Amino acid sequence: MTLHVCVSCLAGEDRDASPRAGARLYQALIDTQQRQDQPPHVRIAAAECLSNCNRGCSAALCGAGRWSYVYGDLTEAAVDDLLAGAGRYAATADGLVPWRERPTIFRKGVIARIPPAPQPA
Amino acid sequence: MTLHVCVSCLAGEDRDASPRAGARLYQALIDTQQRQDQPPHVRIAAAECLSNCNRGCSAALCGAGRWSYVYGDLTEAAVDDLLAGAGRYAATADGLVPWRERPTIFRKGVIARIPPAPQPA
Repeated sequence: MTLHVCVSCLAGEDRDASPRAGARLYQALIDTQQRQDQPPHVRIAAAECLSNCNRGCSAALCGAGRWSYVYGDLTEAAVDDLLAGAGRYAATADGLVPWRERPTIFRKGVIARIPPAPQPA
Repeated sequence: MTLHVCVSCLAGEDRDASPRAGARLYQALIDTQQRQDQPPHVRIAAAECLSNCNRGCSAALCGAGRWSYVYGDLTEAAVDDLLAGAGRYAATADGLVPWRERPTIFRKGVIARIPPAPQPA
């Protein structure tokens, strides 16, 4: 499983901001994951623009044979919920987390989702 | 390569519309592809909700080792451009079609994109 985090997201800040809001979110996720006792559920990967600039910060949760999800409106305050939600995603077979188990940031921030690749006939 | 087409999209029409706008788009794509002389570039698959309801009709273009793209604001008038754009996508190694080669519906209708799965280290 991979959580792709857009490191170019500005989230409304000035274009010259450094580090950018997306890069700060990425670093906060890495730092928090490294402080956790249990082995990580997902690999956190820095991504170029996820084409969701109007609702950044953005991240995408993906895994083989699973639905992929793109989330927006994320901030550094969402780090714990993001990692918890990624854990719930990792615990499913198909990426479909029951609605009531989804963190609020996943319910309200979903931008789009993509089905798993079809199995060869 | 797969073009996932949301068949539940209403695109602003009444919830009781039958067939729904998304299902009409899906059928139009299938019909048009079957009339083409060359072998299809992509497999067209009916999908449940792609969570892009505010900007439906929606479709997602995916392929192994490629960036995935979700598009919105699609109509039956977009069928030829969608299939042409899918052909350009199929002709790339990574899913990144040069900007000037992208149909207008891809430039204006992109909702989000997701990087390919990282290669194992």
